Amino acid sequence: MKKLLPFVLILIFKTSIAQNSDLLKYVNPLIGTEKMGHTYPGATAPFGAVQLSPDTDTIPYELNGRYNPDVYKYCAGYRYEDKTIVGFSHTHFSGTGHSDLGDFLVMPTVGALKMNPGIASNTATGFRSAFSHNNETAEAGYYKVKLDDYNIIAELTATTRVGIHQYSFPKSNDAHIILDLMSGIYNYDDKNTWIYVRVESPTRITGYRQTNGWARTRTVYFAMEFSKPFKSYGQKNFEDKQVYKGFWRKFNQNENFPEIAGKKLRMHFDFDTEEHEKILVKVALSPVSQTNALLNLQTEAPGWDFGKMKEQVQELWHKELSKIVIQASEEEKVNFYTAMYHTFINPTVYMDVNGEYKGLDQNIHKATGFTNYTTFSIWDTYRALHPFFNIIQPQRNNDMIHSMMAHYRQFSMRSLPVWSHYANENWCMSGYHSVSVVADAIIKGVYTGDAEEALNACIETSNKRKYEGIGDYIDKGYIPAEKSGTSVSNTLEYAYDDWAIAQLARKLGKQDIYETYMKRAGHWKQVLDKSIGFMRPRLTDGSFKKDFDLLSTHGQGFIEGNSWNYSFFVPHQPVELMQEMGGQKKFGAKLDTLFNMHLPDEFFAHTEDITREGIIGGYVHGNEPAHHVPYLYNTAGQPWKTQAQVRKILEMQYQPKPDGLGGNDDCGQMSAWYIFSSLGFYPLSPGSNIYSIGSPSVNNAVLHLPNNKTFGIEVKNQGKGNVYIQKMTLDGKLYTEYSITHEAIMNGGKLIFYMGSKPYKK
Amino acid sequence: MKKLLPFVLILIFKTSIAQNSDLLKYVNPLIGTEKMGHTYPGATAPFGAVQLSPDTDTIPYELNGRYNPDVYKYCAGYRYEDKTIVGFSHTHFSGTGHSDLGDFLVMPTVGALKMNPGIASNTATGFRSAFSHNNETAEAGYYKVKLDDYNIIAELTATTRVGIHQYSFPKSNDAHIILDLMSGIYNYDDKNTWIYVRVESPTRITGYRQTNGWARTRTVYFAMEFSKPFKSYGQKNFEDKQVYKGFWRKFNQNENFPEIAGKKLRMHFDFDTEEHEKILVKVALSPVSQTNALLNLQTEAPGWDFGKMKEQVQELWHKELSKIVIQASEEEKVNFYTAMYHTFINPTVYMDVNGEYKGLDQNIHKATGFTNYTTFSIWDTYRALHPFFNIIQPQRNNDMIHSMMAHYRQFSMRSLPVWSHYANENWCMSGYHSVSVVADAIIKGVYTGDAEEALNACIETSNKRKYEGIGDYIDKGYIPAEKSGTSVSNTLEYAYDDWAIAQLARKLGKQDIYETYMKRAGHWKQVLDKSIGFMRPRLTDGSFKKDFDLLSTHGQGFIEGNSWNYSFFVPHQPVELMQEMGGQKKFGAKLDTLFNMHLPDEFFAHTEDITREGIIGGYVHGNEPAHHVPYLYNTAGQPWKTQAQVRKILEMQYQPKPDGLGGNDDCGQMSAWYIFSSLGFYPLSPGSNIYSIGSPSVNNAVLHLPNNKTFGIEVKNQGKGNVYIQKMTLDGKLYTEYSITHEAIMNGGKLIFYMGSKPYKK
Repeated sequence: MKKLLPFVLILIFKTSIAQNSDLLKYVNPLIGTEKMGHTYPGATAPFGAVQLSPDTDTIPYELNGRYNPDVYKYCAGYRYEDKTIVGFSHTHFSGTGHSDLGDFLVMPTVGALKMNPGIASNTATGFRSAFSHNNETAEAGYYKVKLDDYNIIAELTATTRVGIHQYSFPKSNDAHIILDLMSGIYNYDDKNTWIYVRVESPTRITGYRQTNGWARTRTVYFAMEFSKPFKSYGQKNFEDKQVYKGFWRKFNQNENFPEIAGKKLRMHFDFDTEEHEKILVKVALSPVSQTNALLNLQTEAPGWDFGKMKEQVQELWHKELSKIVIQASEEEKVNFYTAMYHTFINPTVYMDVNGEYKGLDQNIHKATGFTNYTTFSIWDTYRALHPFFNIIQPQRNNDMIHSMMAHYRQFSMRSLPVWSHYANENWCMSGYHSVSVVADAIIKGVYTGDAEEALNACIETSNKRKYEGIGDYIDKGYIPAEKSGTSVSNTLEYAYDDWAIAQLARKLGKQDIYETYMKRAGHWKQVLDKSIGFMRPRLTDGSFKKDFDLLSTHGQGFIEGNSWNYSFFVPHQPVELMQEMGGQKKFGAKLDTLFNMHLPDEFFAHTEDITREGIIGGYVHGNEPAHHVPYLYNTAGQPWKTQAQVRKILEMQYQPKPDGLGGNDDCGQMSAWYIFSSLGFYPLSPGSNIYSIGSPSVNNAVLHLPNNKTFGIEVKNQGKGNVYIQKMTLDGKLYTEYSITHEAIMNGGKLIFYMGSKPYKK
Repeated sequence: MKKLLPFVLILIFKTSIAQNSDLLKYVNPLIGTEKMGHTYPGATAPFGAVQLSPDTDTIPYELNGRYNPDVYKYCAGYRYEDKTIVGFSHTHFSGTGHSDLGDFLVMPTVGALKMNPGIASNTATGFRSAFSHNNETAEAGYYKVKLDDYNIIAELTATTRVGIHQYSFPKSNDAHIILDLMSGIYNYDDKNTWIYVRVESPTRITGYRQTNGWARTRTVYFAMEFSKPFKSYGQKNFEDKQVYKGFWRKFNQNENFPEIAGKKLRMHFDFDTEEHEKILVKVALSPVSQTNALLNLQTEAPGWDFGKMKEQVQELWHKELSKIVIQASEEEKVNFYTAMYHTFINPTVYMDVNGEYKGLDQNIHKATGFTNYTTFSIWDTYRALHPFFNIIQPQRNNDMIHSMMAHYRQFSMRSLPVWSHYANENWCMSGYHSVSVVADAIIKGVYTGDAEEALNACIETSNKRKYEGIGDYIDKGYIPAEKSGTSVSNTLEYAYDDWAIAQLARKLGKQDIYETYMKRAGHWKQVLDKSIGFMRPRLTDGSFKKDFDLLSTHGQGFIEGNSWNYSFFVPHQPVELMQEMGGQKKFGAKLDTLFNMHLPDEFFAHTEDITREGIIGGYVHGNEPAHHVPYLYNTAGQPWKTQAQVRKILEMQYQPKPDGLGGNDDCGQMSAWYIFSSLGFYPLSPGSNIYSIGSPSVNNAVLHLPNNKTFGIEVKNQGKGNVYIQKMTLDGKLYTEYSITHEAIMNGGKLIFYMGSKPYKK
């Protein structure tokens, strides 16, 4: 028996690997790394605090004192088009259109020590290395690449709070591991306010860096361990002017000196290596302290078995991915599971293993009864990502609402997050869409906290009169165009958010609040110029702005969109919108025009975040404001056009290749749209319990719900041309609605779609 | 009975005030604030973490890119010569010759808001105000001044961790309290690495600032409460270049905006005031967090009774001062109790009320079983301040050794403090004199921690081969002059320190360590040029430096001193020194020359820290290296000359007036010299249990020892001319030694000096 046991364990081990690779093989983290996706290919655990990924450049935010537009391309640190890697850093946003992070960039090298990254066109100028996609592997939780300049194989994996590097060196008595503490994504002078490093032993260093960037006051603590003692080490300080540091000048701080601090520092650790010798580096992060970083490291990543740590994180990924099992084409499976992967990256855990985290008040708090998260890109993710979590990740979404409430309580401004970012509010984008996330979660029974307190937080957030025209919006029903460059989109977004608050109030039996907010929910009518049938900037005197361009995205009163797209942004009252726009027929025709127009070339020249590929007619999928629009054909009484457009978008905007995403993935929102739509339904109005029916692209799907029930989707006669629903049955009974409730899904059951190549017009 | 009680309480209250003022009235915190003393006049509790004191200017460390020599005068923030006050800040060093601190400067004003301090010659240019010494009161724990420009009476008091301001305003609807978060003592661009402030309510703000100065990485957290809600508030950001701060630009952050961060910030809080209306401000500090600062505030300074808080801190002072009760002239009492006051200011408590503090590793630690201290200016204070504590403050000195050991354990460089400074080592001055403090405390039975660990810490500290020539010192017995500008003084200081380690080793029975360190203790002989009888720089080849100037303090191998003074720096082996210098007669003659020489004027032009008044002949009392030298006449067999010189120094170097100190008080070292010498004895060689007898200037003294015994000193026939000891008795028995042991003092008893006007030559 004793002899048998190891063999049995090996069998179990092999079986679990085989099972994992079932779904894992469909995840391709390289999708979205070219052109507009802004995803990163490196290693992360589900919702992990560490995102360990290669950076192909660290270009400056400013050139000659002006914004460098190229920096935008490097939001995720990695560009598939690039030929060189500067190193592997530990924090990355997934799919954003603005950035930060890139903490603690590590790069292994061999030969003469170089302390600058050098230039891409000549890697000999610095520590960067050429690489080839032929020698690159990206999986969920694992990344591997050969660094051609050094003949080093770099492998990366991660736990929730620890990044693990494994570098296979050639034989050398001049091998180095560079730790670049000054570089970052969206880099500029003075971004680092302080860096501190302590060499505790020849295998351990700890420290922190504080930055002032997109997050105004952000500190990341770290603990770093090497599997082999370094034989020597040193630092280089790149400060233009040596800031006075008292009598530390007594020392040569550049060589083997264990106390290091400054604003612009890089370090190197030196080794002798044998051919193929593997050196592992583990880097744990903490929002609280070096002590906690070390605790995270020792708790999550003891030992030096890289393969085991890789296996553990891939087990976690498999568990997450297998919450929905689909049958579909191989290509579709890659799209689907890569989308699942991208939806389970953000928000990120922002808490140490002992429950401590830094709050918005910059104090240390202990999360009791929940996991604290950050990286809430809510303008994007309230639309489909958080609704998706309410179905498949309710525990995490519950924790995210708890995190938002902690943000609200700790923040001197007493508001729910707009963009929660490492104990900071970065105020990116518009609206107060946290109220939608909160309302949706409470209405769907997901939030376990104090619902009344949450409603009050929503109300307080929606009444910040000084924030982006809210005072005018409350007083006049709209934001005058003279006072804001985004007066129309803000008015529209507030109106939707207010509707979400109203729904929450109704759920809690607060009739007066419901009525107040339902009035505000109708404010979208204030910016609808019925004479032209479009949303339009309105002046203080009540008149509409003259010289108005329906297509332009600049100076017309909208953010990340034009009037053509934003005029449909009444996700909460589509029927009323249709009526105001002249009824079902006119509304349908207007949707037709949107999807079929031909945009002039100059439109693209001045629009960020999207490419021609991100657009269908005039419908912009690459940005979020119109994500619900294809589903409005259901409102217009032409569900077959919803079905056709959804399938067209699924096919055009999501392709299983590095440049396959038609726009920024935006912390999973684009991917969440994919998952919903490929399954055949979409949350048109988060805050209601109703999903709108589209056209599924899978052949079959089983949702393993957290209540241990399953909801099945079966698609009969699926095929590329068969995008039109001919018939549906729910649990064997004919189903004639083009919508389905949250309860129907969560109760389990089976929805069967019968597809055909011709529209079924009732 | 019930009716009687309040009356009784009032009586007790009055009695305690009366008792307090007995000794308190002799403390004059203005002594040393003019010329060289570098003391501050403001309010602090004994060893308090807060030193709330007026700053008369905040001049820049650099002018046109070069060191501004005037900055040196402002080490303590306040210059008695100045006519204006810029505000009241919360941290100050007492008597240093270099500086930092000046955190959170507060200034009340009336009238048009001014956000710059303005210039001294025209106070209308800024928020500073003229003041007059006629309207100024400084007591232990209390400071009061009238701000002439605003007709505001400002009063200050403090608890250990809280500064309390009471401002009596005139009637105004335009009253302000300025909070200058950017100013500091020794101020320069980039000194602030980050400032964060959170307005929690109209009566409370919290925040922190991190500086990079004499301490390289120093963060001070604060919590500030106002007794009256401000009607409005705002900030001004003085950054030359607005560093990118994401989308915070959406807001007008300058007015009534509660989340504030940056590098150069001042805030204002606005009030309506009635005639004579008092507004109180409490500011608590913490090394750990805003949360802890608030806890400190609420624990130590609840309520708004300024008078009560003043009374409490003065009770604490009275308790400390009454540890030695003297009879002497009124002038002598002022000198004595002001010296007592100055010795009980530093080191400072560096720990919150819950025991938490920031360690050298920048992690948060909890002190268990001791109070953690910082501000160890050890090059100064090992000589007399810590020995004084071993007699009269052994519990605190024990805690200080614990703090030094924590420093050693937490510091990546594994060394005992040179200059411990707010979770930092600032490396100011030379030697590793902590070993003296540790050895003295253990030898005198004061340290309760692990003595062997302490010995090991001393040994490790003394073997940092890369630190200031220690490697060469160990190998060659001296530091070659080519390698160091302070090769001689370092060699001498190390030799003394090594002797202290040897004494500790002997105490612990470590004979081999004792022998090793006794060898090193003799290294002073390596730099003694016997051909001239002076300590002299020695080159690698063993020869002595040519072109040598015995008087100059620059480029001759000494720090803060010349060969004339340093040649006597063998406090541990004075007899051997005397022998090497040619025996008793020559040694005595050399001392005579030192005390009687006439220094040329050019000597003073190039010497910092001292004035002509700080010098007697060539003996420099204003700096520390020769503090033991007057007592060497005892070694030379001429104790009457020790007696005469000590009395001369007491009279000349310590006078009860603002410019009464002959040199920087140096965190209490100068004052500790005064106390010892005025009582008639001095610790010639800390690390031994023997004090050298001088000539007491008091008439009578009772030392209330911590073991509840008393040691009495009585001086018969005391008088200005009667400086010579004719006879001594100890406990009634004739006492013929010119030294006394620590045990003799601590056992209690009475030493009677019989004085006369003529030397008693045995």
